[in-house]
Amino acid sequence: MQEKEIKVMKKILATNDKMAMELREILKKKGILFINLMSSPGSGKTSLLESTAKNYNGKLAVIEGDIETTLDAQRIANAGMISYQINTGPFGGDCHLESGWIKSALEEIDLNDIDILFVENIGNLVCPAEFDVGAHFNVVLLSTTEGEDKPLKYPLAFQNSSVCIITKTDLMSYLDLNLKQLKDNIKKVNPKMKILELSSKDGKGMENWFKFLTENKLS
Amino acid sequence: MQEKEIKVMKKILATNDKMAMELREILKKKGILFINLMSSPGSGKTSLLESTAKNYNGKLAVIEGDIETTLDAQRIANAGMISYQINTGPFGGDCHLESGWIKSALEEIDLNDIDILFVENIGNLVCPAEFDVGAHFNVVLLSTTEGEDKPLKYPLAFQNSSVCIITKTDLMSYLDLNLKQLKDNIKKVNPKMKILELSSKDGKGMENWFKFLTENKLS
Repeated sequence: MQEKEIKVMKKILATNDKMAMELREILKKKGILFINLMSSPGSGKTSLLESTAKNYNGKLAVIEGDIETTLDAQRIANAGMISYQINTGPFGGDCHLESGWIKSALEEIDLNDIDILFVENIGNLVCPAEFDVGAHFNVVLLSTTEGEDKPLKYPLAFQNSSVCIITKTDLMSYLDLNLKQLKDNIKKVNPKMKILELSSKDGKGMENWFKFLTENKLS
Repeated sequence: MQEKEIKVMKKILATNDKMAMELREILKKKGILFINLMSSPGSGKTSLLESTAKNYNGKLAVIEGDIETTLDAQRIANAGMISYQINTGPFGGDCHLESGWIKSALEEIDLNDIDILFVENIGNLVCPAEFDVGAHFNVVLLSTTEGEDKPLKYPLAFQNSSVCIITKTDLMSYLDLNLKQLKDNIKKVNPKMKILELSSKDGKGMENWFKFLTENKLS
């Protein structure tokens, strides 16, 4: 039973990865930086995008992945970013986005003058990491409330990302979090990881995120 | 591509559900209450089990589901509960547990005199809800830090559970959480849901969880 599932999965992954590579090239040629945000539900992906829409100087677009609802796309559109929603509910409630869906979404979005395209992946620390969506950077978010052990328990999301954003730092003084241990655990699964710490709520550390975006812009 | 995946998935689900029904009956006959805990990573499943192990009067066992590591099983074993670990890493990093794996795990655990068997499912608000593990109660945890919208965005986990535990209530005064809105959203996707509020850290509300366990014990 298990064997069969994995067999099918591999075939899907190969098709997905090929299209992801193509997407990465297409967007590079267009001068659009493509960033894929991954995390658990409630780690602060939408809040980060809202704050980025309001405070970062550039033309930004987002493809929102959700199983149900358009709540997040609405929040980000309200903050001023071009928003496009993919709901996976009709596809069996899939817990990740695939490159083919991103490609279809891009046919619906006016990409003229866009500086940065974000994907807000489905809130899940497991499946999205298995599917390359064609981004130039995978960014994994982890909130201070989630505990030090998560990089060890969900290594793939951290291994397949080049930036880790520790969010909700405004809550740190109310938590027992050992920040050094958390960072050590991140480095243990991915020694090359760039780690940013910030709070979308009080704005602390947002400047480092904006600096990262500016340094990596393609146009 | 998509169609193929769903076809395989349905077959797996049918096999899984049949074994889950059998498990539910077997454990009922043995007088063992079987509870499946589901939530995002970091919502407090392990902390709830630790606190239950220390403060609830009864013989308890847990089957721990993780992709990697035995960190949680160790924490709970240290707190005094019989612990058994399933790591899904070797099965392709599956993001959920299946009833067949629970059945195999039960062959390794001494079930004599056990009052309550817990499953701590893999930290994920999507996939575990799709797989019946044979529990008498599915319990979904949601921490106060995760936001009011999660029941609407991940409805299946809430529809397939009969109890929702709102955790980390000790942090409430530092958050902008609208608790009434959160509860309304829970009731919107599952009007029959029993909602408990508690903090494993300061112990507030734990008595309601223990009352629920005692009321539903089978022996």
